[in-house]
Amino acid sequence: MSRVIAMDTHDVRFPTSRFLDGSDAMNPDPDYSAAYLRLRTDAGDGHAGHGFVFTIGRGNDVQVAAIRSLAPYVVGQDAEALLDDLGGFWRRLVHDSQLRWLGPEKGVMHMAVGAVVNALWDLRAKRAGLPLWRLLAGLTPTEIVDLVDFRYLSDALTRDEALKILAAAEPDRADRQAWLLRAGYPAYTTSPGWLGYDDGKLARLCREAVADGFTQIKVKVGADRREDVRRLRIARDTVGPDVRIAVDANQRWEVAEAVDWVAALAPFGVAWVEEPTNPDDVLGHAAIARAIAPIPVATGEHMANRVMAKQFLQAGGVGVLQLDATRVSGVNENIAMLLLAAKFGVPVCPHAGGVGLCEMVQHLAMFDLVAVSGTAEDRMIEYVDHLHEHFAAPVQVRNGRYIAPSVPGSGAEMLMESVERYRFPGQA
Amino acid sequence: MSRVIAMDTHDVRFPTSRFLDGSDAMNPDPDYSAAYLRLRTDAGDGHAGHGFVFTIGRGNDVQVAAIRSLAPYVVGQDAEALLDDLGGFWRRLVHDSQLRWLGPEKGVMHMAVGAVVNALWDLRAKRAGLPLWRLLAGLTPTEIVDLVDFRYLSDALTRDEALKILAAAEPDRADRQAWLLRAGYPAYTTSPGWLGYDDGKLARLCREAVADGFTQIKVKVGADRREDVRRLRIARDTVGPDVRIAVDANQRWEVAEAVDWVAALAPFGVAWVEEPTNPDDVLGHAAIARAIAPIPVATGEHMANRVMAKQFLQAGGVGVLQLDATRVSGVNENIAMLLLAAKFGVPVCPHAGGVGLCEMVQHLAMFDLVAVSGTAEDRMIEYVDHLHEHFAAPVQVRNGRYIAPSVPGSGAEMLMESVERYRFPGQA
Repeated sequence: MSRVIAMDTHDVRFPTSRFLDGSDAMNPDPDYSAAYLRLRTDAGDGHAGHGFVFTIGRGNDVQVAAIRSLAPYVVGQDAEALLDDLGGFWRRLVHDSQLRWLGPEKGVMHMAVGAVVNALWDLRAKRAGLPLWRLLAGLTPTEIVDLVDFRYLSDALTRDEALKILAAAEPDRADRQAWLLRAGYPAYTTSPGWLGYDDGKLARLCREAVADGFTQIKVKVGADRREDVRRLRIARDTVGPDVRIAVDANQRWEVAEAVDWVAALAPFGVAWVEEPTNPDDVLGHAAIARAIAPIPVATGEHMANRVMAKQFLQAGGVGVLQLDATRVSGVNENIAMLLLAAKFGVPVCPHAGGVGLCEMVQHLAMFDLVAVSGTAEDRMIEYVDHLHEHFAAPVQVRNGRYIAPSVPGSGAEMLMESVERYRFPGQA
Repeated sequence: MSRVIAMDTHDVRFPTSRFLDGSDAMNPDPDYSAAYLRLRTDAGDGHAGHGFVFTIGRGNDVQVAAIRSLAPYVVGQDAEALLDDLGGFWRRLVHDSQLRWLGPEKGVMHMAVGAVVNALWDLRAKRAGLPLWRLLAGLTPTEIVDLVDFRYLSDALTRDEALKILAAAEPDRADRQAWLLRAGYPAYTTSPGWLGYDDGKLARLCREAVADGFTQIKVKVGADRREDVRRLRIARDTVGPDVRIAVDANQRWEVAEAVDWVAALAPFGVAWVEEPTNPDDVLGHAAIARAIAPIPVATGEHMANRVMAKQFLQAGGVGVLQLDATRVSGVNENIAMLLLAAKFGVPVCPHAGGVGLCEMVQHLAMFDLVAVSGTAEDRMIEYVDHLHEHFAAPVQVRNGRYIAPSVPGSGAEMLMESVERYRFPGQA
């Protein structure tokens, strides 16, 4: 038996705004940051559990404070008891009535719960000697549904329906795992399309994306319609007719405006329209989706919880679900969202980029392929080529595909030197 | 000219869980708390601006940290410039791209913005020598819409439509104000119905409510159906046929469960069904509302922002909008919600109770009566009889009606002795 003996927290901020990496129509100058935690035990096995919430700068200290406030739920606890019942741990934190008031199940406190839950998953995977995706894909259907809270979902997905989805995918798990290990998981790249880049950089990065084997790129839009048309033309002329181009408006539009704007971009061939309007607006997304069909609407990086995901799927407001590793309350809630998406037949293409999101979401997509939806068709993981060097097991993307990770853990572990160097305040 | 020279913050917690005041099916043991702030200026006029976020205990420290993180936006600033453009101040904070990531527009960071915005409103009202409701009801329609951000609302409510609503209410403002000062604003009481109270206390408090002139009470339900039927019978037998009884499930039900449960309670005469399920579930509330009509669904105390309010109204998921003074980002966003409700013809009956919520929401309801909806019909303000003694200007409720406040300010100011005495940690 071992105990959790400490939760170390760190306010880590990278000064990305200096180079306009990550710049879009809503976020002109993000400083990619992580409210980071490390759980240590007295097991003496050298394993720690790492987790974080991705933010874009100011307020990262508040996010750290929220994580710290959860220390009493883990520090001093029996580590095996926690790790053996992560479904129970999730419920205890998410349904703590006093903490719940601060959301409920959304925003700073909900994301803090997610970071702690994910740190425990990281520890569990390390103890098992498995990358998280393999750990999850090795659980039985019953073990998987025990991780999920079906409260507020039953009008769209029951526990029994979830079990059936998982059971249907079970017989061919080994085949798909072998395929994944051989072929990798499809990726697309957002690196060319940040709004702050000039035309030359846009064209150069588009060429590089094609040369690197990507079959889809993403371009940020939404600030200026004529500029968007001009930039999309450059992108299309550069990548040719066969590479898919998705556009991402980062919530800039009103409902009617989105429909008009997309009509102006559609002639260039648009793979999906991402975050056309406010991420809470289920009905608005559904109206846009109806108007721009067959171009699908993509959203998810700001989807607060599984109840919002349920509604987006029920209303037809999402055609590509972009779940995020640190927006909701951890792996457990992401599994609920994967199951909901499978029920509605909507592909999941996780949001990544940021700090460490690529490292984390790949595990969710690969678990989905092996054990939930059972397919990688129409699915790909976002890839952005920055800040990977700060992680203990950086993603490997080759020929436009994620190589399935083999290093034990969830991918969240950052290098100690990076945590120290970019600790805020104190960056150069 | 004066400057804001300090933001004092306090973690104030009242040990209400000791007596089960405020106990319901989701919140068995709340400790009513306030993440409290005070803005001081160098004007030398003795006025400070007070604001807070209501929480129910654990995590109040995180809420205080979020408020503190906003100090740079106000401390050192020109006070008159801030107070003269509270619409601009609201936009600056809510649309700060880095802070926005932490919601967006929901949870801890959004409520923190609301507390700071409200502290400025308190200061502005004190400087004007007016209670907040009179200050707001004295603004022109243009001044009022300038306070509101119509972003993401235009598919339901435009600035022009809002101006028309306000213009229509303008001619009779003085008459309604005179009526309000004479008659007071209707109230209902939740004091009898907390789930933790025994039958004797329930019946006694029901009798007292009727004797005190209330024409509506509210009973908490949702933990045990047979118990609910028993308690509703006691309540109905005690108050007689003419007093309205609302029930409040505090989010305990699934969609189908809510419909069944309400059918069991309906024979006792139910005025409205409050928070039947998860507060994010627009579509679920709409399904319940269709099934239990003509009994209306009431919700709002956990409605994260105006975009959620818009959807609840569009989908018919809310028949009684219970906006809350500290859940959203302050007076400005509450005005947006009042305008949306007026557009859709849905009555607003604010959520109160808690700590200081009665003191604050009365201003919103009275402003609505005088200048927005132009009516108090089908409208009442919740009243809970506790913790008022800690406020500088406690509400006055007589014969089941709120007496319109005359003391300058927003109602948020707590007595210094109470802030000191209930500072956490350190309560007895």
